[in-house]
Amino acid sequence: MKRIGIINGPNLSRLGKREPTIYGDKTLTDLEAMLNVLAKELNVEIETFQSNHEGEIIDCIHEWADQGLRGVILNAGGLTHTSVSLRDAVAGCDIPCIEVHISNTASREDFRHVSLLSAVCKGTIAGLGLDSYTLALRYLAKH
Amino acid sequence: MKRIGIINGPNLSRLGKREPTIYGDKTLTDLEAMLNVLAKELNVEIETFQSNHEGEIIDCIHEWADQGLRGVILNAGGLTHTSVSLRDAVAGCDIPCIEVHISNTASREDFRHVSLLSAVCKGTIAGLGLDSYTLALRYLAKH
Amino acid sequence: MKRIGIINGPNLSRLGKREPTIYGDKTLTDLEAMLNVLAKELNVEIETFQSNHEGEIIDCIHEWADQGLRGVILNAGGLTHTSVSLRDAVAGCDIPCIEVHISNTASREDFRHVSLLSAVCKGTIAGLGLDSYTLALRYLAKH
Amino acid sequence: MKRIGIINGPNLSRLGKREPTIYGDKTLTDLEAMLNVLAKELNVEIETFQSNHEGEIIDCIHEWADQGLRGVILNAGGLTHTSVSLRDAVAGCDIPCIEVHISNTASREDFRHVSLLSAVCKGTIAGLGLDSYTLALRYLAKH
Amino acid sequence: MKRIGIINGPNLSRLGKREPTIYGDKTLTDLEAMLNVLAKELNVEIETFQSNHEGEIIDCIHEWADQGLRGVILNAGGLTHTSVSLRDAVAGCDIPCIEVHISNTASREDFRHVSLLSAVCKGTIAGLGLDSYTLALRYLAKH
Amino acid sequence: MKRIGIINGPNLSRLGKREPTIYGDKTLTDLEAMLNVLAKELNVEIETFQSNHEGEIIDCIHEWADQGLRGVILNAGGLTHTSVSLRDAVAGCDIPCIEVHISNTASREDFRHVSLLSAVCKGTIAGLGLDSYTLALRYLAKH
Amino acid sequence: MKRIGIINGPNLSRLGKREPTIYGDKTLTDLEAMLNVLAKELNVEIETFQSNHEGEIIDCIHEWADQGLRGVILNAGGLTHTSVSLRDAVAGCDIPCIEVHISNTASREDFRHVSLLSAVCKGTIAGLGLDSYTLALRYLAKH
Amino acid sequence: MKRIGIINGPNLSRLGKREPTIYGDKTLTDLEAMLNVLAKELNVEIETFQSNHEGEIIDCIHEWADQGLRGVILNAGGLTHTSVSLRDAVAGCDIPCIEVHISNTASREDFRHVSLLSAVCKGTIAGLGLDSYTLALRYLAKH
Amino acid sequence: MKRIGIINGPNLSRLGKREPTIYGDKTLTDLEAMLNVLAKELNVEIETFQSNHEGEIIDCIHEWADQGLRGVILNAGGLTHTSVSLRDAVAGCDIPCIEVHISNTASREDFRHVSLLSAVCKGTIAGLGLDSYTLALRYLAKH
Amino acid sequence: MKRIGIINGPNLSRLGKREPTIYGDKTLTDLEAMLNVLAKELNVEIETFQSNHEGEIIDCIHEWADQGLRGVILNAGGLTHTSVSLRDAVAGCDIPCIEVHISNTASREDFRHVSLLSAVCKGTIAGLGLDSYTLALRYLAKH
Amino acid sequence: MKRIGIINGPNLSRLGKREPTIYGDKTLTDLEAMLNVLAKELNVEIETFQSNHEGEIIDCIHEWADQGLRGVILNAGGLTHTSVSLRDAVAGCDIPCIEVHISNTASREDFRHVSLLSAVCKGTIAGLGLDSYTLALRYLAKH
Amino acid sequence: MKRIGIINGPNLSRLGKREPTIYGDKTLTDLEAMLNVLAKELNVEIETFQSNHEGEIIDCIHEWADQGLRGVILNAGGLTHTSVSLRDAVAGCDIPCIEVHISNTASREDFRHVSLLSAVCKGTIAGLGLDSYTLALRYLAKH
Repeated sequence: MKRIGIINGPNLSRLGKREPTIYGDKTLTDLEAMLNVLAKELNVEIETFQSNHEGEIIDCIHEWADQGLRGVILNAGGLTHTSVSLRDAVAGCDIPCIEVHISNTASREDFRHVSLLSAVCKGTIAGLGLDSYTLALRYLAKH
Repeated sequence: MKRIGIINGPNLSRLGKREPTIYGDKTLTDLEAMLNVLAKELNVEIETFQSNHEGEIIDCIHEWADQGLRGVILNAGGLTHTSVSLRDAVAGCDIPCIEVHISNTASREDFRHVSLLSAVCKGTIAGLGLDSYTLALRYLAKH
Repeated sequence: MKRIGIINGPNLSRLGKREPTIYGDKTLTDLEAMLNVLAKELNVEIETFQSNHEGEIIDCIHEWADQGLRGVILNAGGLTHTSVSLRDAVAGCDIPCIEVHISNTASREDFRHVSLLSAVCKGTIAGLGLDSYTLALRYLAKH
Repeated sequence: MKRIGIINGPNLSRLGKREPTIYGDKTLTDLEAMLNVLAKELNVEIETFQSNHEGEIIDCIHEWADQGLRGVILNAGGLTHTSVSLRDAVAGCDIPCIEVHISNTASREDFRHVSLLSAVCKGTIAGLGLDSYTLALRYLAKH
Repeated sequence: MKRIGIINGPNLSRLGKREPTIYGDKTLTDLEAMLNVLAKELNVEIETFQSNHEGEIIDCIHEWADQGLRGVILNAGGLTHTSVSLRDAVAGCDIPCIEVHISNTASREDFRHVSLLSAVCKGTIAGLGLDSYTLALRYLAKH
Repeated sequence: MKRIGIINGPNLSRLGKREPTIYGDKTLTDLEAMLNVLAKELNVEIETFQSNHEGEIIDCIHEWADQGLRGVILNAGGLTHTSVSLRDAVAGCDIPCIEVHISNTASREDFRHVSLLSAVCKGTIAGLGLDSYTLALRYLAKH
Repeated sequence: MKRIGIINGPNLSRLGKREPTIYGDKTLTDLEAMLNVLAKELNVEIETFQSNHEGEIIDCIHEWADQGLRGVILNAGGLTHTSVSLRDAVAGCDIPCIEVHISNTASREDFRHVSLLSAVCKGTIAGLGLDSYTLALRYLAKH
Repeated sequence: MKRIGIINGPNLSRLGKREPTIYGDKTLTDLEAMLNVLAKELNVEIETFQSNHEGEIIDCIHEWADQGLRGVILNAGGLTHTSVSLRDAVAGCDIPCIEVHISNTASREDFRHVSLLSAVCKGTIAGLGLDSYTLALRYLAKH
Repeated sequence: MKRIGIINGPNLSRLGKREPTIYGDKTLTDLEAMLNVLAKELNVEIETFQSNHEGEIIDCIHEWADQGLRGVILNAGGLTHTSVSLRDAVAGCDIPCIEVHISNTASREDFRHVSLLSAVCKGTIAGLGLDSYTLALRYLAKH
Repeated sequence: MKRIGIINGPNLSRLGKREPTIYGDKTLTDLEAMLNVLAKELNVEIETFQSNHEGEIIDCIHEWADQGLRGVILNAGGLTHTSVSLRDAVAGCDIPCIEVHISNTASREDFRHVSLLSAVCKGTIAGLGLDSYTLALRYLAKH
Repeated sequence: MKRIGIINGPNLSRLGKREPTIYGDKTLTDLEAMLNVLAKELNVEIETFQSNHEGEIIDCIHEWADQGLRGVILNAGGLTHTSVSLRDAVAGCDIPCIEVHISNTASREDFRHVSLLSAVCKGTIAGLGLDSYTLALRYLAKH
Repeated sequence: MKRIGIINGPNLSRLGKREPTIYGDKTLTDLEAMLNVLAKELNVEIETFQSNHEGEIIDCIHEWADQGLRGVILNAGGLTHTSVSLRDAVAGCDIPCIEVHISNTASREDFRHVSLLSAVCKGTIAGLGLDSYTLALRYLAKH
């Protein structure tokens, strides 16, 4: 069965508690439960990982690359805009990654308008709330 | 029945003929057919419009706003990066728009890295080929 | 009798419907009626034109130049910030133009702070609501 | 009777003597006389103030705010492009200000293209010679 | 017989009337007549098109691509500096295009120093008056 | 007894009246009274000075340098971001200065993010309301 | 009793050993001891945390937010200028944070002149040596 | 007898006391005495003026223009880099001005590398200590 | 008989050996032979010069100006983008120069997009291989 | 015996697996073995450390500084371009560091052209494959 | 007897012939004769050198440094704005250099506003025609 | 026997005399002697060349390319940062070049932070004094 990984970066552990007008009131547990339901429907298996540590996220991508996962959904939070190392990890694994964002980063602060990750990901889905994840999962399940 | 509009901007009439290594070999007719099938499945109705004219696309958005469409999928092609007028049209109608791109604009020329539309759209889906449209349609059908 | 043209660019057809907190609740028809009343008082004749198409606005300026109009009031909407072609049309006709804006563009998004038209217009009136037009008309009627 | 203040900043005392190809040959006295005539016609009272000192202009705005003037016409000269303090004075009083310029600043040196004042003024009138003042006065008399 | 297209963009319809110190006093009709004479001499056929509308120029390039023209001479006027859509049209057709300018754009305003078209055209000829067209025609007739 | 000067620059005379959501509702008199109480407690003497004139503030710094004051608390208002002359005055006196701001300038307009004074002051305290002054006074009283 | 947290970021563990001309010769232990004495005097309790890991500092802020601390003093070291994730953590907790710096960052390298944290902190105290911490503690103890 | 004015701007009153490693140990009185001696030798008369107030310097230039002085030596201090109003005063009088600096501004902070005055002065002499003034005086005495 | 000079700058001596995918496989000798043939046909005489030394190229332009040549074709190679001195030489002679490039510099590295020479040349021909020279020769022979 | 440390930052654990056209096909184990052989030959001892965590690399530098290592070879991977904290760690230890890169970072993406580390390292060796390390080791063994 | 060198860079050999509205109608021979007369009066000896070659100017500075000249007047022409090598030559010799310009470079093209030489010269004299040289000679003769 | 060239650019002839705190006290003769000793040890032959003339260095590279040298060590001095022509010469020969610098250019002036040569060289060694050359020689001898 095809395995797909879902990475949530810094501060996404606090989904539902943190700035709910921007990020909504669902928690990370809610999100992962929702994605598990969809995964079953799409007949794929999912792995989830959350960390506030850039290094742990890079470690995770390396490990999943070695395990042969077939796709990664990556919400890198604030690291999106600052981490060349994470970009290198994505570029250096052979798994297609989809960059997702809950909020519409283009309508927020200037420094959120540039993503170091987009160019090395397969594509980007932003601004569609938790559906940014579900749509990415549909894409990866199909391709 | 909920109606959703799909706008394809400049040069997208040549989908399938134009730079197939970037845009794939499906034509605009193929794309619209594919979206019609999905629309039925999702129980929504779709309107499609293609033009190479900024003004006609703005006219179309105004008209659809008056007709009460419930969502717009907008691939504005090169206008994405240059048209303040189109941005104003999107901001001034009350329909949620989703910006879509077939290719991963972030991995192409620098001038494609800035979108004037993203900030006034609900969200963006880029780089997922024709699935950028189907995922956007799924989102609009559901919300 | 001196003839003066009034051009309203993209999205101004939706005056009164579009973002009323920014643009007010008067429609384009209201505006043109108001200007006609003032024109009579000032003993000038006015021509009005609205289009969402850059090309049609340029065509209109060419035509009015050939017809010998004596002044143009130009609210180019979003084209203000992006159209070198419109700038060239204004620079290439011999009619004094006044650039007008309903809202105070200087207090809005950064990309609205630069006008490609100002340098080739006689002057600019911005931020005074529909009075931006009436004051421009007074000026052109007098000079 | 409604009172409206008119402030002329640095070097405007030399109107008529200074670079007449740019600023015309009318003096500051001519301008103030002209505005007094118009004020009578419009049934308002005007106060005039000229200074080459940023601090005195700020003092004046504070004083007029305390006296309850109902509008200010402000030609800040070179301070337009450099004075955050003046901007703060305008923002901090509750009187609507109209920024005026005799010349078309947009067609002059680059450093004249940015105004620190526009965003906190009600609106701007530029490039219409001394009529920039008369039109501003008409606006403030009416609103 | 080899067919070559010649496109003149916004405001070039007014050649001879518009800013003659920059663009000379020959009209568009004069130019096209001159090119027809040369075309005969070079044993090629020419098509000419002028429009002030970005969309119509893109439509024209698409059509000529379908008709199998063998070269395009493109003076895009102000669109040269602003139109990503036109660039995409040029890049997406398989006809070699030569960008031409009557005036020396490098010695004019800053915004004329950047061309969005050059990188996707075969080459550029600028500043040589109407000979910019005749030299381009010679090149395309030969290759 | 150690003497410490407190300078309040342009518009701070209107503390309490000006934009109270940003600057609070205490007046300059309240502030100076509060600082006098604290000065007594800390066994230092304070001098206060307010002016809307860059030149007078520079004069004041020169004078206090000659009088041998032992520290200066400097809220230069809008001059913070624009005055090289004030910077030179601070750098050229031998008194340690502390730059203070009532509001958090970093969360306001872009032009408030750069201070010409910080680099030549001993340190900076910003965003802590009137306590920005009291903390600065504590520091200078101690060192 | 009110609890206040004190976070020292990367390299601050080496206080006293690292570049003493910039950071002084007191160690981190000295600093924490000094703050404990002051805390008692001010009748508050303090928690201290030091880490060279961005992720651990974010974890700590989350934890303290959950524990209900009433203020945080944050010297983020080099992360001040680079970490969007840390900014998001500060913005997403409801505890007032004060950004502190021992040295005057404004008089050092250019890349130290921009802080990503200032805009989401309550205020900033910089350049006052270890007193940057003591003054911040006084502020938080009082408010 | 030809009269030449010498203006010293902000902080130059403290020549000899202020940062002597940069500005030397001669006072303003010494400088003016030295220039008086040279003026006699060159058979010209000099006027001197020093102020820390931008407005007073502008007033002085206006006055000297009215009195028919034949040249101005202008060391505007920090205003060199910030005052558009002073530039306008220089541009608007018909007296040739020579910009002088005691120190080599090009080897100091970046913000001292741009002078708003140079382009409207006859010429510039910088970095030659008090001889910057004497050489300027020689030039003006001769021309 | 009209004499026209042809200057080839740095590295063009290696034409045919250097990066043939960019510059083609014809040598400089081939190019000059080809231009001699065309010159005869056009009834003009040509002088050719190649050097890798900026100074020698400037010397050559001075000499040709003194000898009364009637046009110069200038391929300045890498100096195009860096040499103000060469620009000054071109601007200071009274011979019309045409800047030519074999490759399409606009589609290469960013630093090749700016030419210091274009603004002082009569015009530019780029990207048309060796025909960039032949077309320039035709132009200069005719005018 | 002199001890020298070798740090490999993020993603270098995947040497040999990751983008071999850029980084070659030798693994990190191969590299460390090769360096051990050379170390023996040069009569020095080496310590090796790899981590994907910025914090751990900083911890390592601190520890090695305390242990008295005599040199560090630092390939910081993506952190090279983003980590002020790592720069501070290098600047704050007293060990000479040599920055090394396997690939030629200057011929890759723009964001790789700026290194935050170079200025605080003794020197840099880039683009020479694994020999970047061996040459650095030779240097540190000798000095 | 003190020896002073005078270097004239690219295109200054054509003084009097080249753009006389900018550079005047005196030739280089006239200038050198004039300086010789003044040198005698000031009791110094002068050496003159002109070249269009950056390398020869650097050679000359090296030679003069070895010969013990006591000052250099340097008009580097276009090299002023582009030559780091020349800057290094000036910085590396121990002779005080004075940068001179005949024209007011600050009022010409933007690229002439930055001098790479100023920061390593003793001072700069610009815009005073040939007197820029005579004043520099006076300075060097005296110091 | 493999031949390797060593080029020293502008001002390196003065090694040992010029700014010894930056460049050390060894002369160019010392350096070349040292490299000859190492060359023998490595069993390669070296050619050395020094010039202050960009053109001569380009000539030299062309000649060595024709002679079949197998590597070049290039210290281009100030030309590193300014010479596109030298870059083109390096890119156009087929010899691997190594860029070397004696000093750490990254810790010096801003304009030394960008090298036009790095991207077309095999690699770069900077900041290691004369060992920058010896390490480069070792590399080229081996590959």
